[in-house]
Amino acid sequence: MARIVMKFGGTSMAGIERIRSVARRVKREVDAGNQVAVVVSAMAGETDRLVGFCKEASPLADPREYDVVVASGEQVTSGLLAIALQAAGVPARSWMGWQLPIRTSSAHASARIEAIETAELNTSLSKGEVAVVPGFQGLAEGGGISTLGRGGSDTSAVALAAAVKADRCDIYTDVDGVYTTDPRIVPRAQKLKRVTYEEMLELASVGAKVLQTRSVGLAMKEGVRVQVLSSFDDPDAAPMADTLPGTMIVGDDEIGDDMERQLITGIAHDKNEAKVTLTDVPDKPGAVAAIFSPLADLSINVDMIIQNIAHNSGSTDVTFTVPQAELARALDALDKAKDAIGFAGIVHDTKVAKISIVGVGMRSHAGVASTMFSALADRGINIQAISTSEIKVSVLIEEDYTELAVRVLHTAYGLDGAESASG
Amino acid sequence: MARIVMKFGGTSMAGIERIRSVARRVKREVDAGNQVAVVVSAMAGETDRLVGFCKEASPLADPREYDVVVASGEQVTSGLLAIALQAAGVPARSWMGWQLPIRTSSAHASARIEAIETAELNTSLSKGEVAVVPGFQGLAEGGGISTLGRGGSDTSAVALAAAVKADRCDIYTDVDGVYTTDPRIVPRAQKLKRVTYEEMLELASVGAKVLQTRSVGLAMKEGVRVQVLSSFDDPDAAPMADTLPGTMIVGDDEIGDDMERQLITGIAHDKNEAKVTLTDVPDKPGAVAAIFSPLADLSINVDMIIQNIAHNSGSTDVTFTVPQAELARALDALDKAKDAIGFAGIVHDTKVAKISIVGVGMRSHAGVASTMFSALADRGINIQAISTSEIKVSVLIEEDYTELAVRVLHTAYGLDGAESASG
Repeated sequence: MARIVMKFGGTSMAGIERIRSVARRVKREVDAGNQVAVVVSAMAGETDRLVGFCKEASPLADPREYDVVVASGEQVTSGLLAIALQAAGVPARSWMGWQLPIRTSSAHASARIEAIETAELNTSLSKGEVAVVPGFQGLAEGGGISTLGRGGSDTSAVALAAAVKADRCDIYTDVDGVYTTDPRIVPRAQKLKRVTYEEMLELASVGAKVLQTRSVGLAMKEGVRVQVLSSFDDPDAAPMADTLPGTMIVGDDEIGDDMERQLITGIAHDKNEAKVTLTDVPDKPGAVAAIFSPLADLSINVDMIIQNIAHNSGSTDVTFTVPQAELARALDALDKAKDAIGFAGIVHDTKVAKISIVGVGMRSHAGVASTMFSALADRGINIQAISTSEIKVSVLIEEDYTELAVRVLHTAYGLDGAESASG
Repeated sequence: MARIVMKFGGTSMAGIERIRSVARRVKREVDAGNQVAVVVSAMAGETDRLVGFCKEASPLADPREYDVVVASGEQVTSGLLAIALQAAGVPARSWMGWQLPIRTSSAHASARIEAIETAELNTSLSKGEVAVVPGFQGLAEGGGISTLGRGGSDTSAVALAAAVKADRCDIYTDVDGVYTTDPRIVPRAQKLKRVTYEEMLELASVGAKVLQTRSVGLAMKEGVRVQVLSSFDDPDAAPMADTLPGTMIVGDDEIGDDMERQLITGIAHDKNEAKVTLTDVPDKPGAVAAIFSPLADLSINVDMIIQNIAHNSGSTDVTFTVPQAELARALDALDKAKDAIGFAGIVHDTKVAKISIVGVGMRSHAGVASTMFSALADRGINIQAISTSEIKVSVLIEEDYTELAVRVLHTAYGLDGAESASG
């Protein structure tokens, strides 16, 4: 017997037929003797609909009231799944965020979970009742409904798993695990049996959007074993989740002795960055701070930064990337700060892609990056910028070369498996 | 300065443009110096959508979870109206049923309001904040979300008005008041300035569906002055609600000296009844109880009852009416009890209509009913059954004569006004 948290996204909850399918999957776990808490998203499209209402009512909707509106999507699916479970003969009840409660900060629309009270919930789980908990929502300090920001349901699931000391948190999604790279680009991409929290964080942050980054960070902090697995298999015929058919996200210690593991775990790509270059920035103390302070004030996330060595003239070019969605605001802020910074001009380019190699094996092996640079150079792919972390090397290239670069690197690091039938 | 509760139905909340129109109307009351609490319904169609989901998930959905699902509709409109009010420069916040809380019984899906806690709410209202409260929902004993049953938002509004000691409860609806009869049948129907609670109860229960019966009963018990008025007038140009442009529903004392008031206040009709006749029922003690006990067990509401005098044979016919929606269940129950009751046959007829004259003036005037009977007889309209209460006389007639009967009676009791332009 295990205690597990199961999480289902919006696609899995889109309509009663699918909710019934989720109920069958939950029933299998209950029938196998497990205690189960389920975290659900709103029906696919519903949160967008509700957010649209709020924006239409006011472009600057009060976040407190925004939360009242958008939290309703998960409320609906929680109740419906409880009904479907009962109809399938499984004792079940829903618990709203304010009922448990899931206590959060008062930062409405982007609240952080602070604590989950579990006394009543544990009693209910121990009696064999399935708990259905809406993702994405909580009870703010002050007593209002709060939400965690888009994609927050993964975080809800991991936080709940930590709170009830679950043996596993199974995240059912529209892929059947985490792959060495995007299988749509590389048909020979292989599903990873295990990936570390840190690798998953790097993969998620560079575009492999299987899990919300925040939820992975929380799982790492709380030591929650998270499995990513498919919600699209036939719920009655799929392998049981405790046979670990998906990808387990675990601590370093659990993969320490995996001899078959490659040096590089995965190749990620991200086309959502924009490159900005400020030309002829004075090469003096404080110049860089003058550039990035106004961006930080707007919470614009700056990623890769390259500062060339100073020209003879005593000035330099500074290049960095920001999310494309933030580009207009970034350019505006920089333009306003032009005199303070003292640059000559701004050049920007959205036709770029960031390609990253990720793997904890990098820590103990030198020369990993040079394989990357050579492989790209052999195909004539020009590197515009480089950034590195302990377990990741990222390069910025021209967007048109994205797929080629991913394929080249996938092969170069020995990640190609057998070609899959679905190719 | 007054404290008022304003209630808007689903049609008024159907879409952001209409919600903004509601916000303008609320703002006018605030600008006039009033303290305002607003009770809102879900967007038109939304409750049906949510109920449909529940029924699809299980024909016998757990009422507790059903409430979790369907209460979300009013949650959404409450948040949206608060946002729209703020955008219009009016301080506002929403209060969910569980936040105030509005305490209800634990009869999920058809809960009764037991108490509304108002300490925090009064503080907020006194500061000039508009309170937006979702109708139809509350907090059940035991801590779950409850709903009051369909149409419960009127009841929420009246209960809230009683709890905050409001000077008036304005119910905005798709008609501009209560009329002497259905203006679609009688273009010369006149809007009533005032109607008593009891008259309104009788009018509502016989088909003039302006207000939910339950809310009128509560208003009478709590002495809440309720005004029915139009939500379709231009919100910026409509007469102010404190000029009483709609129909006020008040106690007997407030209309005691209204010399212009007619003897009869209104004529109602109801085509939703079915007539059932049991033939040759034994004329012995307990026979009638044997008929109506099985119907009472099924909560089938029996209205008019006529028992003819016994035939020479020692048996009699018993005729009564039930709602058409309940007819099949009623016939089934009676058929099962046939031996116990001992009747010979069942005849039923859905082509009937109940026509009622209603007015508190009836109490002090004899001969009111005979005017009705003569007027109908003059036009050859046959009366199949009669029932009376202190302030109402109802007759059952063939359905095809409904409109004719209403027109004849409207004229007979002197209710015709000037022909309205809209006819």
